[in-house]
Amino acid sequence: MILAVTLNAALDVTYEVDALVPGSTHRVTTSWARAGGKGINVASVLHALGIPVIATGLVGGSTGDLIVADLEARGIVHDFVAVNGDSRRTVNVVSAATGDSTIFNEAGPVIGADEWTAALATIGSLVESHAATVVALSGSLPRGLPDTAYAQLVEVARDRGALTVVDAGGAVLAAAVAAHPDVVKPNLAELEAATGSTDIPAGAAALRDLGARDVVVSAGAEGATVVQADGRVITVHPGARLAGNPTGAGDAMVAAICAGLADGDPWTTTLTEAVAWSAAAVLEPLAGELDAAEVVRRRSAVTVVAGSAERR
Amino acid sequence: MILAVTLNAALDVTYEVDALVPGSTHRVTTSWARAGGKGINVASVLHALGIPVIATGLVGGSTGDLIVADLEARGIVHDFVAVNGDSRRTVNVVSAATGDSTIFNEAGPVIGADEWTAALATIGSLVESHAATVVALSGSLPRGLPDTAYAQLVEVARDRGALTVVDAGGAVLAAAVAAHPDVVKPNLAELEAATGSTDIPAGAAALRDLGARDVVVSAGAEGATVVQADGRVITVHPGARLAGNPTGAGDAMVAAICAGLADGDPWTTTLTEAVAWSAAAVLEPLAGELDAAEVVRRRSAVTVVAGSAERR
Repeated sequence: MILAVTLNAALDVTYEVDALVPGSTHRVTTSWARAGGKGINVASVLHALGIPVIATGLVGGSTGDLIVADLEARGIVHDFVAVNGDSRRTVNVVSAATGDSTIFNEAGPVIGADEWTAALATIGSLVESHAATVVALSGSLPRGLPDTAYAQLVEVARDRGALTVVDAGGAVLAAAVAAHPDVVKPNLAELEAATGSTDIPAGAAALRDLGARDVVVSAGAEGATVVQADGRVITVHPGARLAGNPTGAGDAMVAAICAGLADGDPWTTTLTEAVAWSAAAVLEPLAGELDAAEVVRRRSAVTVVAGSAERR
Repeated sequence: MILAVTLNAALDVTYEVDALVPGSTHRVTTSWARAGGKGINVASVLHALGIPVIATGLVGGSTGDLIVADLEARGIVHDFVAVNGDSRRTVNVVSAATGDSTIFNEAGPVIGADEWTAALATIGSLVESHAATVVALSGSLPRGLPDTAYAQLVEVARDRGALTVVDAGGAVLAAAVAAHPDVVKPNLAELEAATGSTDIPAGAAALRDLGARDVVVSAGAEGATVVQADGRVITVHPGARLAGNPTGAGDAMVAAICAGLADGDPWTTTLTEAVAWSAAAVLEPLAGELDAAEVVRRRSAVTVVAGSAERR
């Protein structure tokens, strides 16, 4: 079983308006809401492909109730830990006139130190009770949590025999690698922020020196590269450049990595899937959606380049 | 007891951002939410001055729960009728850079015909059970309700011995006057839309010909004029022109009219209070707030002009 963790879950609300004019009053012509956050997108992608997954993390208040109700309606298995604060909303105002998205992100709840201690224990017990073999840790942290939150969860998961995949940036990524996660998946900007390097093999080697085992760097339309513990490097290119919605492409990649880890697949297979899922996700208007037939088409288009990294 | 009805109650959410830039992503630095809608503002003003009032109307879903919870927290007595749809939110994005407000109004629930029939009966029973002597009907209607909704409520209230005050515009106002409400309070734009006239005595006479008894026309910084059933006209000017927040000034005026009706005050007294409350409300940043000391100051500044209208 894969456990996808979202500590800062959101209710993603979309408002359609005729045209956005700052300083004026707008009638919202259509609105809808959907559970979001990177870990929830990972769970949604795995669910779309029929791969067993449980979404967990922290939710609270009436917005938290709506997040859980949406997962329930979508048939995504969930087991969230309740917190006192109200989960955040994001409001995406889409202008019919220009097609532009203007996004407002609420700050979300502040998690107390005692709440986090209790949640950490609860998530640990979920790893056991759901017999999780892979735990995905995705996205930003709510206020109040230490930068070491993912590092703590990596240890909790490993102590219970589960592999871990971390998709984070900044200080949270830096703290997480020190706990020796099995896979970290920075994008190029996150790699540079964490290591100062824009060179994938050099940056990945730096992350490995800090404690990460395998490092997958996502490079948008260029695909992705894995640098493994033994120095082997595999790069997968997606083939045709696709126009679409890049939001959620990274989450689809993390989902494929989790699925590959759960199955014990070799990296050539896993990274091929990761790039195919990610490319297929770009074609979906909503993050977390994936069409299995499109994955098959994208898989046939990829090219795999294997080599070995020069270690410093 | 005064009963303040809000059929399209809202949760008014405010987001503070550094600067609103269409097409970009914004971190909401501060957010808060508050029960809103014109009838709720009327109840809030009466509550602020210690005058007994009960807020009622239609609420639904988790947003409806938050509206009721906010009234509870503010100590405003409430007795709302539950509907199936989710009550609407308004999102007001305030830019710290410019001070501009950019507002997004959700459409709100669609009320079914059977729901409305049941709600009408329930509101009728609330008029009785709370021994209401005055019923205020304020603001727009949710989708699904007929334009005659306020006309129906005027009849329901009168059948139970209560006086009625209608604050509405357009087709809803036109339908309401045919049911002979005791007071209607259009502003100048609503008066012109309903009667084609910008002349207050002529427009008010036209509304009276259509069925209204007393007509109060609010004229912003110019104050207000009442045209009574017997043709007497009283105009009250607020004195000094005040800079501030005009949202909610009309609701404060309706609140004073309700209080005057409930006490059986003469129109000179009631309209003086109405203009004083309205002026004091302009000085408050939030609609529905009122400072009793400021009302005293505004009351001392008004001038009253009495006369009689020439009937056509």
